[in-house]
Amino acid sequence: MIARGAGEGIWALAIHGGAGAARREADAEARAAEIRAVLAAVLDAGARLLSAGGTALDAVEEAVVRLEDSPLFNAGRGAVLNERREAELDASIMDGTSLEAGAVAAVRTVKNPIRLARLVLERSPHVFVAGDGAEGFADRHGLERVDPAYFVTERRMRDLEDARRSGRNDRAAPTGGETGTVGAVALDVHGNLAAATSTGGLTNKSVGRVGDSAVIGAGTFASNASCAVSCTGHGEIFIRATAARDVAALMEYAGLDVETAAARVIHERVAGLGGEGGLIAVDRRGRVAFAFNTDVMLRGAVTHASAPFVGIDRAT
Amino acid sequence: MIARGAGEGIWALAIHGGAGAARREADAEARAAEIRAVLAAVLDAGARLLSAGGTALDAVEEAVVRLEDSPLFNAGRGAVLNERREAELDASIMDGTSLEAGAVAAVRTVKNPIRLARLVLERSPHVFVAGDGAEGFADRHGLERVDPAYFVTERRMRDLEDARRSGRNDRAAPTGGETGTVGAVALDVHGNLAAATSTGGLTNKSVGRVGDSAVIGAGTFASNASCAVSCTGHGEIFIRATAARDVAALMEYAGLDVETAAARVIHERVAGLGGEGGLIAVDRRGRVAFAFNTDVMLRGAVTHASAPFVGIDRAT
Repeated sequence: MIARGAGEGIWALAIHGGAGAARREADAEARAAEIRAVLAAVLDAGARLLSAGGTALDAVEEAVVRLEDSPLFNAGRGAVLNERREAELDASIMDGTSLEAGAVAAVRTVKNPIRLARLVLERSPHVFVAGDGAEGFADRHGLERVDPAYFVTERRMRDLEDARRSGRNDRAAPTGGETGTVGAVALDVHGNLAAATSTGGLTNKSVGRVGDSAVIGAGTFASNASCAVSCTGHGEIFIRATAARDVAALMEYAGLDVETAAARVIHERVAGLGGEGGLIAVDRRGRVAFAFNTDVMLRGAVTHASAPFVGIDRAT
Repeated sequence: MIARGAGEGIWALAIHGGAGAARREADAEARAAEIRAVLAAVLDAGARLLSAGGTALDAVEEAVVRLEDSPLFNAGRGAVLNERREAELDASIMDGTSLEAGAVAAVRTVKNPIRLARLVLERSPHVFVAGDGAEGFADRHGLERVDPAYFVTERRMRDLEDARRSGRNDRAAPTGGETGTVGAVALDVHGNLAAATSTGGLTNKSVGRVGDSAVIGAGTFASNASCAVSCTGHGEIFIRATAARDVAALMEYAGLDVETAAARVIHERVAGLGGEGGLIAVDRRGRVAFAFNTDVMLRGAVTHASAPFVGIDRAT
């Protein structure tokens, strides 16, 4: 049940847990049920926060924290492993009101990279910090650290072995199955937008590889002038396509609505470069758009006017 | 003298060596003459390359290499120093034909970061690599490495001491004087565009800070659909503004010409966020645009139809 907060205010929250090929696994059904349950719980918590007058920035951060904490997704605990069998995590967050942003890359011991990105937004003179410098910043601000082993799950060890066996180390393509980057976009009752994204990147990726989830304008963008966007998929292509900013730019400069803009970026711009993935977006009227050119995109949305929706494949 | 190559082909090259406040120094005039001489030599070499049918991608890489090698600019040798008295270098390059790109951040031992960015574009499955991973990639491909001391000049040691004395360590603002990021944009006789940018970032910056020069869409962007752009200035703001992509997006989606788009991004979008800096851009007709809201922008251009131009302040 969603309590109405500010009453007359409209709000919306959309989330994703990655886009990719459908996994063919023995436990596929049980896993899908787990995923749906987590996504529904995240929407429920977000709806409470937003309907009570909470900010979009808080809503996207909290949603992403919950998705990072779940081992089901490729972010925080459960992130995919790089060529050194380590999780190296990227995250970014943007406030559509001020265009303030925080981004971190190649983080290895911060439990919730999205909290570090928020801290960069709030407290750093910089917008984007990578590697040891990002960890040092986390240290100085007392953010929770974990042993790198915290992030590693048996499933991701298997994924890495599979990737190596199939000789994918020279390819930047996501391994089979959803890539599982997580993200959230929100509109709050104050009329403000925000977006957040967090990921472990690609299985077997090179040390130091930075994906679109750490790049403002690529994986994450928010502006009250247009919309909030979070992307997932083949990060190299999303960087080249400046995918998240392009959804917003198509609204701002070409007058498209959020759904048309989202579809154009995924089905023309990203697909035109050979990229696969998806994105979620929300505009200032609370209209939510999903676009993906993969078999599945783990996703959900809830608004002041609509009950929670959770979907996995096209049939939902 | 510029030799005409492909004859009927049009080509253009624009370069910059940073934008900022005018330095008030005893040797200002001698320094300005040195800067003009280097910029003119870079234009001359670029004109030879482009008029002989060379590619825009080669032209921007070679121009930036020469600017990195000069100790006058904040890139390669002569880069500013971070809080640990080290140079940490960012660079990126983009091919407007294919939208292929390469970007590196927090590099400490690669003599020419722009060559590493080009190598990432050509040879890596990834687009963006940071820190030790980027150095490892340079190693595997035999790129020239140097001792970190190579980058350090006496002038930048003084800049760092000045910044510390004035307590600027908590501010992301550039120190007095031009920031000196370098960049190049080009159109070749084949009708292709490219852009490249390289920098040491901000004096006294935090370890691991990534600026706009490493971010495709922020400091660097090129697309044959619109233009090639390289930015310089307060990098945090240029990231939030997705400045380079926005020049291109304003052309592509709003139908602006390159000069109007460049001016709007600097004087409205960047300035609106409190940012200072400038950019250079070139479109497929070889029209060059400069825009800056600082006292000076070290800059130059040459085209098939116009003799080399070098400018420093507004009066040039």
